[in-house]
Amino acid sequence: MLLQNPDKQEPNISKSAWISETAIVLGNVTIGDNVYVAHNAVIRADEPGSSIVIGDNCNIQDGVILHGLSGSEVVIKDNTSLAHGCIVHGPCTLGSGCFIGFGAVVFDCNVGDDVVILHNATVRGVEIPSCRVINDGQVIVNQEAVEGLDDICSDLEKFKASVINANLDLIKGYTDLACKK
Amino acid sequence: MLLQNPDKQEPNISKSAWISETAIVLGNVTIGDNVYVAHNAVIRADEPGSSIVIGDNCNIQDGVILHGLSGSEVVIKDNTSLAHGCIVHGPCTLGSGCFIGFGAVVFDCNVGDDVVILHNATVRGVEIPSCRVINDGQVIVNQEAVEGLDDICSDLEKFKASVINANLDLIKGYTDLACKK
Amino acid sequence: MLLQNPDKQEPNISKSAWISETAIVLGNVTIGDNVYVAHNAVIRADEPGSSIVIGDNCNIQDGVILHGLSGSEVVIKDNTSLAHGCIVHGPCTLGSGCFIGFGAVVFDCNVGDDVVILHNATVRGVEIPSCRVINDGQVIVNQEAVEGLDDICSDLEKFKASVINANLDLIKGYTDLACKK
Repeated sequence: MLLQNPDKQEPNISKSAWISETAIVLGNVTIGDNVYVAHNAVIRADEPGSSIVIGDNCNIQDGVILHGLSGSEVVIKDNTSLAHGCIVHGPCTLGSGCFIGFGAVVFDCNVGDDVVILHNATVRGVEIPSCRVINDGQVIVNQEAVEGLDDICSDLEKFKASVINANLDLIKGYTDLACKK
Repeated sequence: MLLQNPDKQEPNISKSAWISETAIVLGNVTIGDNVYVAHNAVIRADEPGSSIVIGDNCNIQDGVILHGLSGSEVVIKDNTSLAHGCIVHGPCTLGSGCFIGFGAVVFDCNVGDDVVILHNATVRGVEIPSCRVINDGQVIVNQEAVEGLDDICSDLEKFKASVINANLDLIKGYTDLACKK
Repeated sequence: MLLQNPDKQEPNISKSAWISETAIVLGNVTIGDNVYVAHNAVIRADEPGSSIVIGDNCNIQDGVILHGLSGSEVVIKDNTSLAHGCIVHGPCTLGSGCFIGFGAVVFDCNVGDDVVILHNATVRGVEIPSCRVINDGQVIVNQEAVEGLDDICSDLEKFKASVINANLDLIKGYTDLACKK
């Protein structure tokens, strides 16, 4: 469901994106090519001056919530996965090739490329360099805690690439299914 | 969507509240003036003898879930924010001026006024005095743990006031938008 | 809403189940007798070769998300409750009589019977023997951590039985309500 915000701004969505009819995409939102937005996701840019920009080949899975404070940006670069039920709240930038896990919360952060934030983690008010891993349930709310983070391992690199590919396949599958009807 | 519970009780909602058409408000629910209920929220009072009462100027953000056990009450006093994806389950009372963070869970609690429960925290089976702060990801499930909680700081006081005001502005904005159509 | 996956598979749902019209049930999903699926739940089996099977008398509460990796199964045995906002992701088997708490994440696990996983816990990549309890917010991601888990107490046994019964009563209540209309 595509909706206006109070300033009558409307989402700008690539024709190659696939958006569930049960997802809410509202206001000053830009969605790139081959983005999959799953069921009951909410992507809402309606605070004054806020915006949300989602790069190519991203997937925004079921029940994900994106929103931002007044005057803030959410920027999500290409090839990033937001897994089921995570929340990314602006101001927030996520680099390319990131994976945000189930139920994780990311708020007021600047996250580099290829960062993996695992399930139910909470990350707030920090800058995360590229290629770091935040573990399941970990809480990172000050910059000192960032120092101790591990680098991504090859298993997680493969996992996050497989999630991107699986969701690109879903776009193709659902687009073909709609054409057959 | 306003729905009956099995006892045919229906929500009682102030005319000045703004309820997303994708939110579920069901059964023995009372919603006060100037309450904003965002997308995909579920406010469900359908266990026998359960009720949910939400005071004036509250906001119930996207994907929030309110429900209660049989015979229990959820009471949320004025000027309280339930942020994206949190769960408040009865029996539970939240005082006025509280902020419940993204993905937090509050169950079987009696929470005072001006309490801030941050993101992904879990609070169960305790009484929280007014003006305390529960940190991101913190787990509070016995009364002894409550003793160590800090008092709210001025930054959080300002933050929680700004959330209330931003949501009151959204009600005005969406009401004006609907009138123009 | 019942939907096909790209392979044109459709859910197979017992006539005695009660599915909210706002829930998404999609693809290779089998739902047994007397299952309650609440509002905004997503039960999606659409990765190639994936399946989801839910046994009799289960309840899948508001905002729950079930999904599985390509080629994986989610199996949930009889009399298990998935409480509000939890996420169970395949590959995953849950035994009978389990309770998964609010906002909990369970992924890539083999869980025995009568296991209680409390609120906002994260459990990944492990085997949990029957009758164990995982506490609120606990993170269990290696098999050694499973050794230290407590056995279920009688209070939790009573609680999880009461949740099953309350949801069976809801099915009866909502079915009767629909018949009266």
